[in-house]
Amino acid sequence: MKNIIIASTSTLHGSDYLEYILDELKLFFNQANEILFIPYARPGGISYDDYTKKAKDAFSRINKSVTGIHTFENPVIAIEKAQAIFVGGGNTFVLLNQLYKHGLMTVLRDAINNGTPYLGTSAGSNICGLTIKTTNDMPIVYPPNFNALGLVPFNINPHYLDPDTTSKHMGETRETRIQEFHNFNTNPVIGLREGSWLLVKDHSIVLKGSLSARVFEYQKKPYEVEPETELNALK
Amino acid sequence: MKNIIIASTSTLHGSDYLEYILDELKLFFNQANEILFIPYARPGGISYDDYTKKAKDAFSRINKSVTGIHTFENPVIAIEKAQAIFVGGGNTFVLLNQLYKHGLMTVLRDAINNGTPYLGTSAGSNICGLTIKTTNDMPIVYPPNFNALGLVPFNINPHYLDPDTTSKHMGETRETRIQEFHNFNTNPVIGLREGSWLLVKDHSIVLKGSLSARVFEYQKKPYEVEPETELNALK
Repeated sequence: MKNIIIASTSTLHGSDYLEYILDELKLFFNQANEILFIPYARPGGISYDDYTKKAKDAFSRINKSVTGIHTFENPVIAIEKAQAIFVGGGNTFVLLNQLYKHGLMTVLRDAINNGTPYLGTSAGSNICGLTIKTTNDMPIVYPPNFNALGLVPFNINPHYLDPDTTSKHMGETRETRIQEFHNFNTNPVIGLREGSWLLVKDHSIVLKGSLSARVFEYQKKPYEVEPETELNALK
Repeated sequence: MKNIIIASTSTLHGSDYLEYILDELKLFFNQANEILFIPYARPGGISYDDYTKKAKDAFSRINKSVTGIHTFENPVIAIEKAQAIFVGGGNTFVLLNQLYKHGLMTVLRDAINNGTPYLGTSAGSNICGLTIKTTNDMPIVYPPNFNALGLVPFNINPHYLDPDTTSKHMGETRETRIQEFHNFNTNPVIGLREGSWLLVKDHSIVLKGSLSARVFEYQKKPYEVEPETELNALK
């Protein structure tokens, strides 16, 4: 019985950390009082303690306590015993590398597949897909491989950005990058715009928030799906 | 005797492929009639043949012939015998992976260190640095490692983009990404804006074009350097 939120971002422009999704989280985490936070992705190089404090402050608004995984002697046991898990954003390569380094991929996957509620934002969402090959992040460390948790049968592209038709910059658009991905990989990719999330309940995967998402399937033209669309048939 | 051009981009907005730098290339390649083109980075998934034709068309304007490395039976010998080499842009992970796969990193490094003129644009510039850890590209394939040719004692960030202060998008800025790089790596990074290039002549590394470049040194505040600045003291 999976119970997962895969969010494009933690923060919307002009609002506080997790603010836009707090009502949803209150419902989502209604069975949990304590949330295990995995701060490994370290956005902007923030320390584990400072990052955990940020999560703690946000969750205090819905009366949940938060503990950083780095404060446990044994992170494997911390995951096994967690009432709920939150993996925050930052750098996806750093996050994945740390999860492999601490030997946490299997225990994390098992816990989530067995029903421990999981919230991922940004990098924490990338790792829910099949691989991290559609992250937007810079490859600042070299992880042992690019395989992710595979909790959904596709890849995530968080912070999905539509092409800026007025730009004079010649770097690739997000859409071009994902199309290049499909020259070497066949699995679908969901481009999740900021403010969108996927709600996974067992075998159901539903798009939430007010925006459409962009779906990229191998050898198909990309297309939009509206909120409340069931995405579990993608493969 | 190194003789290298490390260009941020192949193409400026509103002009043809390589057009902005053709006069410089005419001078740079004045000892070469034939240029060996390495199309491995495949921008947008273009075929090797089509990509080579694009390079051939541009270089025909300065009376140089271009041959794709994929048309040679033995790419090692093609590099050893090349009068000059051009590695075009596209996906840096794909490019690096192909170079390792074909066993070309050492022969390419040796040829360039021995004086074969080398032009890199975008991905072809990323591989001139110490590692590809400051590429902007999506990690669509997993290369055997992130080590690059190390022709200059720093990393390149091509298509460098200043933060857009009007944006409501919450993805990391380029500057934030490079600062995150420095949490795990100590070597300098040069952010090369589109239209800029580095001209490497033996031990000299000079910024060219009309724009300044942004230099990121470990534990220092980022700063700008003006065209004609000598960058060989960075390390």
